[in-house]
Parts: sequence; C-alpha cells; structure tokens
Amino acid sequence: MTTASSAPGVLGRARELVDPAIAEALAGLCGELNEPAVYHFQGRGKGTRPALAILSAEAVGAAPAVAVPGAVAIELIHDFSLIHDDIIDGDTERRHRTTVWAKFGTGVGVIAGDALHTLAFDVLLREPTPPRVKAAQHLARAVSAMIAGQSQDMAFGATDGVSLEQCLIMEQGKTGALLSYASSVGAMLAGADDATVEGLADYGAHVGVAFQAVDDLLGIWGDPERTGKPAGSDLRERKKSVPVVIALNSDTSAADELAELYARPELDEGEVHTARALVEAGGGREATRALAHNHHNLAVAAVDALVGNQEISEAVADELRSMAEFIVGRDF
Amino acid sequence: MTTASSAPGVLGRARELVDPAIAEALAGLCGELNEPAVYHFQGRGKGTRPALAILSAEAVGAAPAVAVPGAVAIELIHDFSLIHDDIIDGDTERRHRTTVWAKFGTGVGVIAGDALHTLAFDVLLREPTPPRVKAAQHLARAVSAMIAGQSQDMAFGATDGVSLEQCLIMEQGKTGALLSYASSVGAMLAGADDATVEGLADYGAHVGVAFQAVDDLLGIWGDPERTGKPAGSDLRERKKSVPVVIALNSDTSAADELAELYARPELDEGEVHTARALVEAGGGREATRALAHNHHNLAVAAVDALVGNQEISEAVADELRSMAEFIVGRDF
Repeated sequence: MTTASSAPGVLGRARELVDPAIAEALAGLCGELNEPAVYHFQGRGKGTRPALAILSAEAVGAAPAVAVPGAVAIELIHDFSLIHDDIIDGDTERRHRTTVWAKFGTGVGVIAGDALHTLAFDVLLREPTPPRVKAAQHLARAVSAMIAGQSQDMAFGATDGVSLEQCLIMEQGKTGALLSYASSVGAMLAGADDATVEGLADYGAHVGVAFQAVDDLLGIWGDPERTGKPAGSDLRERKKSVPVVIALNSDTSAADELAELYARPELDEGEVHTARALVEAGGGREATRALAHNHHNLAVAAVDALVGNQEISEAVADELRSMAEFIVGRDF
Repeated sequence: MTTASSAPGVLGRARELVDPAIAEALAGLCGELNEPAVYHFQGRGKGTRPALAILSAEAVGAAPAVAVPGAVAIELIHDFSLIHDDIIDGDTERRHRTTVWAKFGTGVGVIAGDALHTLAFDVLLREPTPPRVKAAQHLARAVSAMIAGQSQDMAFGATDGVSLEQCLIMEQGKTGALLSYASSVGAMLAGADDATVEGLADYGAHVGVAFQAVDDLLGIWGDPERTGKPAGSDLRERKKSVPVVIALNSDTSAADELAELYARPELDEGEVHTARALVEAGGGREATRALAHNHHNLAVAAVDALVGNQEISEAVADELRSMAEFIVGRDF
C-alpha cells in the first residue's frame, strides 16, 4: 500500500502482538510447508489487516489480545491469496523478492497457499467459543467474496462491455471483503453487538473500495519508483480497472479509441501512453479520484456514526481515521 | 479407486442425497467459478467419501440426511485437492477427461480449487450448531493433514533415505486423513459420543492406508487398461511409494541397484522393467501386500469392536465391511 502519511502507531502495536502468534501458527506446519511459508512471511507488508483487527477490538473496549486469532487468520488468508495470485499472474517478484512459486516451484506455491488457507480456519476453530465460531463463519464468507472478486477480475480481460457496477462489485469482493472483515473481526471476537460490528465492517468495506480505486490510479499514473511496477502496467496488461471501465463506458470518442486499443494483442510504449491519455479524456481519472474521496469520506462517516452512538471511543475512532488515511493515501 | 467388487448399495443412496446438495452449493459460486467447478464435478468418481459419511450417520441410528453437510464438505475438499494436484503434477487428463487447469488455464484451476476449499467450510458453518462446528473443526485438521502428506510426497523425490515410517506417515496424511474424516463425520453430525466417532475414524484411517498401499502396488504392477495410467508410472516418475521405500530399505543388493536407478534423471522402458523386478526382489511387493491386508483387517476389526460394544448396528457394520472391501479391492 503506497502512501505519504506516516505510519499509525497501531501498526507497531499490532506486530508485537500478532507476529509471535503467526510464527507459532506457522511452526505447526510440517517442514516442507513451513519453509516456503516462512520465506513468504519474511517479506510481508506493513500488517495493515492485523492492525485493523486489533483496532476493532480496542474500539469496543476489549483487550487487543482478544483480536489476535482473528488477526492471525486474516493475515494467513491474505498471504495465501498473494502466493496464489502470483502464480495466477505469473509474477516472479513481490516487494523486490522472488515470489514463492518462482523460488520453490509452482507445485510448492499451490500447496503452501492451500496450507495457509486451511490454517486460518484451524487457528480460529481450535477453541470453538461462540465468538470464534462466528469469526470463522464470517471468514468463510469473506474469503468466498474475495475469491469471487479475483475470478471476476481474471475474466474481465476477455469480457466486452464490463459496466462500472460490475467492476465495483468485483473490487468490493477482491479487496473490500477482506478489509471489511479485518476491520470488524476484533469486535466480533470481543462479543460486540451486531450494529457495532456492522458499522466497523462498513468502515472497512469503504476503505477497501477507496484503496482499490487509488491502486487503480497508480496502475496507470503511478511513479514506478514508488509502486515498484512498470509505469502504466495495468494498461500494458489491458486490465479493466475502474478508471478504464469508466472511460470505456463514457459517451466520448476516447471510449471508442480506447476500446480499439484494448482489442489489440499487445500494446507498445507509445500505445500505453495513448491509452493513458484516452482514459483521462474519457473522464476515468477524475471520476476515480472522486470515487476514492467519496468512499474515504464514507469510511470516516461510518466511524463518526459509531462515535455518535457511543459505540466506540473517540480515541480509537481517531486511530481508525488515521488508518483510513494511511491505507488510502493522500496524493492521488 | 480400482476394484473388482460390485458397488455397495450405499453409493447410490448417497448420490441421491448428496448430489443435489453439491449442486446447490456450487450454484452459490459466481459464474466464473461455477463453470470450471461444475465441469470438474461432471467427471467425478463413485462418491466413496460421501457414501462413507452417510454410512457413519446410519451407523449410529441417525437419518442419513444428518450427514449431508459433512458429505458435501468432504466432496468439495476432495475435489479441490484433485484440481490442485493436477496442476502440481502437470496432469492433463483425469478419468479420460481434460483436467480443469488444462481446459481453463492454470489460473482458473488455482482459483476454482480455492473456491471449493472455502466453500467446504462455508457449507458446514452456515448453521453453526455444535455438531457442525465440531465437524468444521475436525475438517480443518483433516485438510491440514492431507496437505502436509501431499507436500511430503512432493518432497520425497529429492530426499535420500526416506524411511518406511516417514512414508507411512505421509500416506496416512495424504489419503488416510480425509477417509478417516469421511468415515466419522456423519456420526459427529449426529452427535454421537467420542468413542464411537473415534472408532469410525479409526476404521477410515485403516481403509485409507490399505487403499493407498494397493494404489502403490497398482502404480508399479497395475494393468494400464484398468488403472488408466501407463504401466509402471510410479517408477517412471521415481515416486517413493511404499513398495519402493521398503525395497530401498531392504538389506539386499536389489536395494543398491534400485537406488542407483532412482538416481538417474530419466528411466527408459527397460529400466522401468528392471526397477519393477528390483522392488519385488527387495521384498517391496510382498510386504506392501501384507501391509494392505493388515490394515484392511484392522479396519474390519474396528467395525467389529464397535458392534461388540453395541455402538453400531450389525446391518450397518456389514455395509462398512463391504465398503472397505470395495475401496481396498480384492486382487492385489
């Protein structure tokens, strides 16, 4: 996640609590699976999802430790999905390190991802208290939504006439479902009432859509130095991301020209440049920025509503707002 | 599963109950995932695992319908593992049909398997009654064991000095864990006491080891017409299956010659033939046959003990014995 904001304090707090629990969970894998899993985790990101899980327990006045099984499960699921996504996309690098499948082989990548997938449910169900069962039940739904979103994203390449609505449903699944779950699982494990859990889930879902919209902008206009991907990589791969779909559905000549470019088997440097200008001319950049701002605002509004109803404390609300800004970023 | 025995009646009974429930579960997948999943299920096997699940409910006097969520979950897990195994092994055919990854692409194979994996937990946790939660908890453990076994099997190729004990632990995981779960999940869902559930799980674990031992024999001496694989395919791939490991660990000159052959990058027709003779000379065939008989007998003994303690009825015990014979086969 690319951002200019400084890292909120909860990220460090969460790592201290969650990292040992992740290490313990991975230690339960047999040696053949432990090695690739540990290798992958050594390159893991900032731990945004576990941090949201911890915050959501603190938000309802619970000890942060209550959220740990949920934080571990969410991180295991996130990393299983990254390991498998790298196979699906044929990506050999992630965060400047060789990806699991590229280092250990496709077979090991498939099975190591599978192992983390099951381990997430195992971690939650080991002590099947009612809140943990609920957390496992909601995890199954969130992972189903994530997988559905990912499969739709894969299918969009070959699909003509993808609508903005379809594209947003895809992104809500692919990115929103897991962030929504992460933002509420701590409260769920603390036994909070449904309205609070749903409010927090709502916050996370909007953060997810805003983050994905910004990610889509970076995939077209992002600085390769900061994104770690080639400039305009989403265009090169002719991805039907939100800005592209908006431009393709615009009633402009840019839409037709862009559709014509997207129908080609490959785009050279100059065509990527042209495509970028066409997405902008078709209104894709501006509308996606507005969408990101809108969902960022909706995330903050969800937090405000929870504070207003005295469901969460103002101190934690502030941290949730900082996390939203940190995840979504400022300059897009 | 290759056998000469006629199919026990429970297979048909189980299909009637379980197939509509599987179809319903798959209908909940988005279109992009439903298509490859349905394609895979159209070529599915005899439904041994769902049948065992149904029998295990009937064994404790419950209505067979009680077992259905467990039967569906076990079949979804079995099929997710087949879809991923075909990617891992690069197999383009299964049951004389193109495999999912070969037909739809590796990416779709990975994600369709993932979707079935999650769906299994989702199906069980949709109504989180205590027996279903217990079934989900045990499913996570069984799937972890299956994945660990599969990853060990993958690693054995590059490992020198695999012991028979390691090999049996691998096979207990790879094949035994899921058959053990299938043989007890119906009783678990019916709320049977732990001793009965464990007795049935024990039966299934022994059936699993016996079945795998026979499968290992067929991988070396099986008739290609019946196995659907080339003669001696396990030797060609230099798999460290039970007969091979026994021969490699035998204190014979055959052991050294076999080790020398297994160290080669590739085996030609004549070398496969020689390897086959060496496994036999090293005692691998006879000892594996004895192992299969022994575990088949242990499976039957587990059933007898359950009948003796009046935990299950004689009528269902007979069906469990028939299923063991059907799964393990007679002529090996």
